Amino acid sequence: MSQNVAQKLIASHLVEGEMTPGSEVGLKVDQTLTQDATGTMVMLELEAMGLDRIKTELSVQYVDHNLLQTDEKNPDDHLFLQSAAQRFGLWFSKAGNGVSHPVHQAHFGRPGVTMIGSDSHTCAAGALGMLAIGVGGLEIAMAMAGQPLYVAMPEVWGVELTGELPDWVSAKDVVLEMLRRHGVKGGVGRIIEYHGAGLAGLTAMDRHVIANMGAELGATTSVFPADGAVRDYLTAVGRGDDYTEILADDGAEYDVTEHIDLSSLEPLIAKPSSPGNVVRVAEVENEDVFQVVVGSSANPGLRDFAVVAEILDGNQTSQQVSVDINPTSREVLADLISGGWLTSLVTSGARIHQSGCMGCIGMGQAPASGRNSLRTMPRNFPGRSGTEEDAVWLCSPETAAAAALTGRITDPRTLTQTHGIRYPKPTMPAMYSSLNDMLLAPLPQEEAAQVELVKGPNISSLPEFEPLDDHLAVPVLLKMRDNVSTDEIMPAGSRVLPFRSNIPKIAEFSFTRIDESYPDRARDAAAGHVVVAGENYGQGSSREHAVIAPRYLGLRAVITKSFARIHWQNLANFGILALEFDDPADYDAVSQGDDVVLDGLHDAITGGTSVTATIGGREVPLHHRLSDRQVEMVLAGGRIPLTARSA
Amino acid sequence: MSQNVAQKLIASHLVEGEMTPGSEVGLKVDQTLTQDATGTMVMLELEAMGLDRIKTELSVQYVDHNLLQTDEKNPDDHLFLQSAAQRFGLWFSKAGNGVSHPVHQAHFGRPGVTMIGSDSHTCAAGALGMLAIGVGGLEIAMAMAGQPLYVAMPEVWGVELTGELPDWVSAKDVVLEMLRRHGVKGGVGRIIEYHGAGLAGLTAMDRHVIANMGAELGATTSVFPADGAVRDYLTAVGRGDDYTEILADDGAEYDVTEHIDLSSLEPLIAKPSSPGNVVRVAEVENEDVFQVVVGSSANPGLRDFAVVAEILDGNQTSQQVSVDINPTSREVLADLISGGWLTSLVTSGARIHQSGCMGCIGMGQAPASGRNSLRTMPRNFPGRSGTEEDAVWLCSPETAAAAALTGRITDPRTLTQTHGIRYPKPTMPAMYSSLNDMLLAPLPQEEAAQVELVKGPNISSLPEFEPLDDHLAVPVLLKMRDNVSTDEIMPAGSRVLPFRSNIPKIAEFSFTRIDESYPDRARDAAAGHVVVAGENYGQGSSREHAVIAPRYLGLRAVITKSFARIHWQNLANFGILALEFDDPADYDAVSQGDDVVLDGLHDAITGGTSVTATIGGREVPLHHRLSDRQVEMVLAGGRIPLTARSA
Repeated sequence: MSQNVAQKLIASHLVEGEMTPGSEVGLKVDQTLTQDATGTMVMLELEAMGLDRIKTELSVQYVDHNLLQTDEKNPDDHLFLQSAAQRFGLWFSKAGNGVSHPVHQAHFGRPGVTMIGSDSHTCAAGALGMLAIGVGGLEIAMAMAGQPLYVAMPEVWGVELTGELPDWVSAKDVVLEMLRRHGVKGGVGRIIEYHGAGLAGLTAMDRHVIANMGAELGATTSVFPADGAVRDYLTAVGRGDDYTEILADDGAEYDVTEHIDLSSLEPLIAKPSSPGNVVRVAEVENEDVFQVVVGSSANPGLRDFAVVAEILDGNQTSQQVSVDINPTSREVLADLISGGWLTSLVTSGARIHQSGCMGCIGMGQAPASGRNSLRTMPRNFPGRSGTEEDAVWLCSPETAAAAALTGRITDPRTLTQTHGIRYPKPTMPAMYSSLNDMLLAPLPQEEAAQVELVKGPNISSLPEFEPLDDHLAVPVLLKMRDNVSTDEIMPAGSRVLPFRSNIPKIAEFSFTRIDESYPDRARDAAAGHVVVAGENYGQGSSREHAVIAPRYLGLRAVITKSFARIHWQNLANFGILALEFDDPADYDAVSQGDDVVLDGLHDAITGGTSVTATIGGREVPLHHRLSDRQVEMVLAGGRIPLTARSA
Repeated sequence: MSQNVAQKLIASHLVEGEMTPGSEVGLKVDQTLTQDATGTMVMLELEAMGLDRIKTELSVQYVDHNLLQTDEKNPDDHLFLQSAAQRFGLWFSKAGNGVSHPVHQAHFGRPGVTMIGSDSHTCAAGALGMLAIGVGGLEIAMAMAGQPLYVAMPEVWGVELTGELPDWVSAKDVVLEMLRRHGVKGGVGRIIEYHGAGLAGLTAMDRHVIANMGAELGATTSVFPADGAVRDYLTAVGRGDDYTEILADDGAEYDVTEHIDLSSLEPLIAKPSSPGNVVRVAEVENEDVFQVVVGSSANPGLRDFAVVAEILDGNQTSQQVSVDINPTSREVLADLISGGWLTSLVTSGARIHQSGCMGCIGMGQAPASGRNSLRTMPRNFPGRSGTEEDAVWLCSPETAAAAALTGRITDPRTLTQTHGIRYPKPTMPAMYSSLNDMLLAPLPQEEAAQVELVKGPNISSLPEFEPLDDHLAVPVLLKMRDNVSTDEIMPAGSRVLPFRSNIPKIAEFSFTRIDESYPDRARDAAAGHVVVAGENYGQGSSREHAVIAPRYLGLRAVITKSFARIHWQNLANFGILALEFDDPADYDAVSQGDDVVLDGLHDAITGGTSVTATIGGREVPLHHRLSDRQVEMVLAGGRIPLTARSA
């Protein structure tokens, strides 16, 4: 039977289950990627599991999130991660080396490989014909311990691209068009597979941009074929031998289909404060702009900085705008220097920041209160920038550069007329810079066994969690709307992230974006509590602190209209029962403060998928979607107690 | 009569008083410099005084301290400062343009000019034959309003330099030698004037390094003659026409004399946690190093980065070291690019940060707990880096580069033998880059008058302070040791500095490095309180928050063995009575918690300098050193109420 690319990747790694959309499959994991914000927890999990050496082909620990170092917590974590990478046999990418996804793609990306990463933008690697999925940290720890990844088999959504992008329109606009059409949950339960004649005009780095923001569509991942563009890329990073062609078979079919004529696209922008609020730039022209930020995993390629540099070259940026350039990696920085682009950026008035994720995760360059900030980044959830009352817009490098020049939202297509600027098509070097000094290879096993973990004073052990009670009688502590993101459940940013290795401390920030009294009220509800939410609960970042921290404060079950995929898995991993309303209308009848009674819970979730709750005295039919494997975890209090018990 | 350079500069600006060491003189102020950490307060003061347009020849507001932007407070302040600079007729250097002192020197420095700055390293401008003095923000506001600067006429300390620096020894080692000989209060009450044949080998930027850290010696300022080296520098920044020769007259004499044979110097380093703990690098070799930071106003010149780049070029930095490069300004960055030096730094493993003060004021790149950090910066007071238990060492770029390579403290002179590295002597460009886009010229007066101040939610008005009571009966809330720095009185760093425009909030951090209970106890002592300290109280940064915040909490008098100059002036400016023990031995008899009674205070300080206190029931003779002008301020509750009253 003809297979599409996604099916080929899954079939070649299938170790359990059937490839029927919706049913759970187990997949062999070849590679893992962890970053520092989530990685410290993964390393503590490896330690708790007593692992001696990782069993994946290749695992890499990156340090790209927490680079600001305003006190000892971040640098202490960097030393911890370096020691843990050495202890367990991982590669280690030092602080300042660069953003995980593009650095990984350049050094380790290879067609046909599976990878999971404790970062929701791991899916970017789909650009090379990899199956790359963002998951919770515990999934990573289990994969390092040799276990398969379990996921519900997604539908494959074939997006056919035809035509060529017009001048001033680039890859970012393609994925913004997907978000304009389908919103932030359009991809839930799906792998997006791009195909068609339009691919010919998209480089591997263009595809990286599109695959990256598949996360914003809620997709399991995005995949592209491994074709000539991938071969060209691998050649340019000095690894042409790693190329294997992977194309969809003739006659391959898709569960869902879509078509985009690239030549019909125009510059798009996501308004504050959701990546799904996409409009044409032309519709919002002339809004005042006070900050422009270029960088992050969403537009990480040399070309995305070079095009900005060539637009700004010889011009002066607006006096009212802070133009913040965040080079992806030392390699991109080195190439920006040798191409003359960094000089153009510096002399036109830009601020050059260290390589890393920076403002994308609220770790620096927060905008002024209520002032518009245009960013080439992937997310603009409220407050994610670090500024409570922020106004962050997401756009292409071209649209960002136009605003940097004019101080207003500006359709970049107008620059030719207003500024005499022709659309730049920067020439990429035949070979990209390849810098290995800050990418440390794993130690040989004997040497590794002697490494001691370096734990600063802020790095504490994982708390232990008890099994699920058969009978729960607990209050609804929060009732929340649709599309609550993990940024709202557990904020990131410079105030919170430094406590990522200290659960009792970080728990104090749980849900405080939604209700400041939650941590106190949770501690008061001694028997535990539940929270209730609308659709797509837990969208956004994969951070498992959004589960561990409320769990530490007594969260036992979450009842929603629907869940975002990664967060739903994280809930099971840490023993929180994820339930959905059979009838979404029942959501309206629930009030914050209602008492919830769940009785005979063990039999109910083991024997079937239906669970009946009494909420505020009224019977409400609910269901779960847990696999038998996940039911076991939830009963045990989570995957770590389950693993410990079976060890 | 023959005059030295310092005397010439003072004589040409003298508007009041006699040039007798110790007596107060009033000096015409030509230029002012403010940075953002202190500047917001200065602008609020200008607003409180109702000033329409500044009366100095030139004033510049820089934004170089608070660049991290982890929330809206810093960017809100940047907008406020930009609006205030436009409103009152200042130049404005945008965030990211660079560190104030070297940028000011390049664009506005001129021999024979007087300048005051609300930053203790303002003295660096002495490199060009300017008289440049760091003062509290209120002095700046008064100078902008047209008033002279009042200072006690310092002694002039002539330091004769002879010989030439050996390879691997540079300007930083010269000033470290001064600190080794004389410690952090060796320069109190003095202007250090460098002269002699040794000057021939020191460029203007070398002199900038030496003049900058005169602040660490406690000196009023440092001066160099304006000679050929200054002319060469001004030519290289495109302002050769601004050169005027200023040399000491033949036979000029000095109040104190000193001699340094440059050829006898070797690499020096200040151990944690004082710039005065200077030892030979050779004595502390092989201590493990985890961080190296190159940058700040203490080693800001292109040469100081280029020499590091050339040492690292083609080598790999130690795996255990984070090498943080903090280019001084966009201009230095542009020149590092065009000289090929930035590429050497990036490829050898360095992290490149945005231009600004960064780690020097605890605004980023804090080191890991208890791990050695070698920095080319000027200060290493405990905790100033942002890390409570820090271990910061101060050294030359050469010594920093050596540690970056080896991961240990290393005498750079050994690199030739161990690494085959010859001492690099980087060739400077004939012309330095000159970038003006982020340096905004003052608006014309009519346009300026229409600018409204942009105040974010965290920017609040100055509190009002009452006149000094004639009778005080208050407790000693703190008894402190010698050399308490303003970093201990009012910490800087990323947690505190964002509140610099919000006195009630920032007051909560007063003295908490010394005693966490101080703010609470101060509020409990409703009638006010005093604090007692040993020698050199208030050394270090010029920040006036170290006076305003405790004043807000009720501090009425400070009794010490002696005061650091700037802090002593700041106390008078904000109506706190500064008293010294007649007999330093009385310090030992005072205990924290003792009651202090000061009676008939108005007559005592107006009529003379002696004040008798009853402390713990025992009579203690004290004295003040206030001028009549300062007595008036203290009686009125500070200089602002006094100005308001006379307006």
